[in-house]
Amino acid sequence: MSIAFTDSVLPAEGGAAVDIIDQTLLPGEEKRIVLRSLGEMCRAIKLLQVRGAPALGVFAGFAIAARAKQLANKGNFLENLLAEAGEIASARPTAVNLSWAARRMTDLAGSMRGEPDDKIAAALYDQAERILEEDRAMCLAIGENGLKLLRPGMTVLTHCNAGALATSRWGTALAPLLLAAERGINIRAYCDETRPLLQGARLTAWELKRAGVDVTLICDSMAAAAMKAGKIDAVLVGCDRVAANGDTANKIGTLSAAVAAKRFGVPFYVLGPSSSIDPKCPNGSAIEIELREGEEISTMHYARRMAPEGIGFWNPAFDVTDAELITAIVTEKGIFEPPFHFE
Amino acid sequence: MSIAFTDSVLPAEGGAAVDIIDQTLLPGEEKRIVLRSLGEMCRAIKLLQVRGAPALGVFAGFAIAARAKQLANKGNFLENLLAEAGEIASARPTAVNLSWAARRMTDLAGSMRGEPDDKIAAALYDQAERILEEDRAMCLAIGENGLKLLRPGMTVLTHCNAGALATSRWGTALAPLLLAAERGINIRAYCDETRPLLQGARLTAWELKRAGVDVTLICDSMAAAAMKAGKIDAVLVGCDRVAANGDTANKIGTLSAAVAAKRFGVPFYVLGPSSSIDPKCPNGSAIEIELREGEEISTMHYARRMAPEGIGFWNPAFDVTDAELITAIVTEKGIFEPPFHFE
Repeated sequence: MSIAFTDSVLPAEGGAAVDIIDQTLLPGEEKRIVLRSLGEMCRAIKLLQVRGAPALGVFAGFAIAARAKQLANKGNFLENLLAEAGEIASARPTAVNLSWAARRMTDLAGSMRGEPDDKIAAALYDQAERILEEDRAMCLAIGENGLKLLRPGMTVLTHCNAGALATSRWGTALAPLLLAAERGINIRAYCDETRPLLQGARLTAWELKRAGVDVTLICDSMAAAAMKAGKIDAVLVGCDRVAANGDTANKIGTLSAAVAAKRFGVPFYVLGPSSSIDPKCPNGSAIEIELREGEEISTMHYARRMAPEGIGFWNPAFDVTDAELITAIVTEKGIFEPPFHFE
Repeated sequence: MSIAFTDSVLPAEGGAAVDIIDQTLLPGEEKRIVLRSLGEMCRAIKLLQVRGAPALGVFAGFAIAARAKQLANKGNFLENLLAEAGEIASARPTAVNLSWAARRMTDLAGSMRGEPDDKIAAALYDQAERILEEDRAMCLAIGENGLKLLRPGMTVLTHCNAGALATSRWGTALAPLLLAAERGINIRAYCDETRPLLQGARLTAWELKRAGVDVTLICDSMAAAAMKAGKIDAVLVGCDRVAANGDTANKIGTLSAAVAAKRFGVPFYVLGPSSSIDPKCPNGSAIEIELREGEEISTMHYARRMAPEGIGFWNPAFDVTDAELITAIVTEKGIFEPPFHFE
C-alpha cells in the first residue's frame, strides 16, 4: 500500500527554486508554493509557511542552493551569496536547525573560494540534497525503532505535531504511524488537539488522515478519559529537549498525558532525534520553559473549521473520577472523606 | 465587602415564563432572555443557554410551573403538562437534577389530580420557588463547608463552571471562593478554560473576576504543569452525579485534573448538593456518559475574545515530563528504557 507523503520542503525548477507546502493554510487548503527570490524565502520563514526545526534546516539548504544557481556568473558571487545566506539564517533567530544548516552551506561555499560559480552552486545543491537525505534517514530510523513497540490493531495517542510537515517524509513521533500506513499495518490514532495553538487538530490530524490513518480528534482534557476507557494502547510524543536523566521537555500538555498514561497503565513513548538529548542538562528542573502571551489562550483565531474533514471525533461531555482520587466530597450536609459513606 | 451575584434562573411574567442569563453569550455580552414555549425551554437546555446541574433543577421547576400556567383551562391539562414535563426532563440525559426536579413537579401535579387547573398551577409555582430557596440555602451551606478546607493565601484550581451561573447565588464548587471574596479572605484562582465549550474561560473566569477574585486562566493541558510547579494548593470541582462508592461524574477533564492532583499531592475536592449523590448507582461504571457532536471540537465559534478582560494568564509553551513517567525514549539510534543511559 502506498501513501501520500508530504515532503514539506522540496527543490523545484532544477534546483533554482524551493517548493513548500504553505502550512498557514492547513487544514482548510493544501497549496504548494514555489519560492524564487530572497524576499519570498525569508517571508516564508517569518510567516511560518514553513516551520518545524528539521524542516527549516532542509529549507535553508535548498534555499541557499537555489539562490546560488540564480546568482552564479553575475559578479561578486560569493559575497552576494554569503550575504543572502545570512539573511535566511536570521529570518527566525531562535530556530537552531536553520542557522545550523545555513552555516553548513556557507562553510562549503567558503571552502571552494576561487572555483567556478557553477561548480560551487552544483556542490551546494548536492549538499542540500544530503541534508534532506540525512533527515529522511533519521526519521526512517526513528520510525523503524518506534514501530517495534507497536502491534497491528493498536490505537495510539498523539500530542502536538511531530510529523512530516515539521521534518521530511516520516516525521519523528508520527514516523511509526506513517510507516505502518505505508506497510498496510492497521494502527489507529487519537490526536490531542493541543491547545492553545491546535497543532494536533490542524496539522497532525490532517497529515495522518492524508496518509490513510484512521484518526479521531479529541480535546487534550479527554485523553485521560480515553485511556481509562481502554481506547489507547500507547502514547507517542516528540521532544524538544531530553535531559541526561530522561526528563523530557515537550509541548505543554505532554506531562498531563504522561501522568494519565502512568495512572491507567498505558505505555508512554518519547520519540526524537538523538540531537535532542542534552547530556549537559542534568534533569528537567534545569530546562527553562518559554512563557508566551495570554492572548493565545484568550482569543481563538479559527472561527473557520480548524480540523480536517473526514476524521472522527470523540467528544464525551463528562468523565468519571475514581473515588480513590478524591480527597473529600463536600455537600450542604458536611465534608465526607474516604471511604465514602454518605448516610 | 459586598459582591455582585448572578441568579442565573428566575421566574418572569408572573410565573408564566422563565428568565435566564444566556450563558452562550458570556463573557462578551451579559443578556437575559425570557422563555415561554416548550420549544424555547428545551432548546435553552440543549444549547446550554441554561446549564449546571442545580440551575437545571431550578429551571425545570420554573419551566414546568410556567407551562402549567399557560396550559391551565385549555383541556387535557394534566396529560399535556406531564407530557411536556417529560420532554423538559429528557432534554439532556446525564444531569440528574433536571429529572429530579421535573419528577418533584409532576409528582405534585399528579397528587392533585381532580383539583382545578389554576390551583395545581399555583401549587407548582410555589414549589418551584421552594426549589430555588432550597438551592440558595444549599449553596450557602456547601460554601461554608468548603471554606473550612481552605486558608487565606491559598490558590485553588477550578474546572468548568459550578458557580452562581450553574446554580443560584453562590454556586457549589465556587461557593467557597465567592464566600471568601465576600468576607475579604484572599484566595486566588487558576481556572481551566474547559474545552470544548470553554465554560471555565467564559463563565468561571467572568464570575470570579466580577466578584473580585484574582483569576489566572490556563488551558486544561496546563493544569498538571501548574500543580508540578507548586502553583496550586487545592482543586475544587463540581459534580453532575456521585455514585454510592464516591466515583464522581463531572465535566470532561475532571478526571485529568484529579489524576494530576494525585500525582503531585494536591488535595482534590468535589463539591455539590447531596441530591447529586445517587445511592442506587453502585459505582462510576454504571454512569452513562453523554457523547456530543464532533463539531464542538472541530470548529471554534469564538473568533471574538472568549475570556473576560482584566484577568491573568499562564501560558507555558512546554512542560517537563518526569523520566519516571516515560516507558521508553526512541531515537534513530535505538530504544532506551529506564534507567536512562543514552551512550
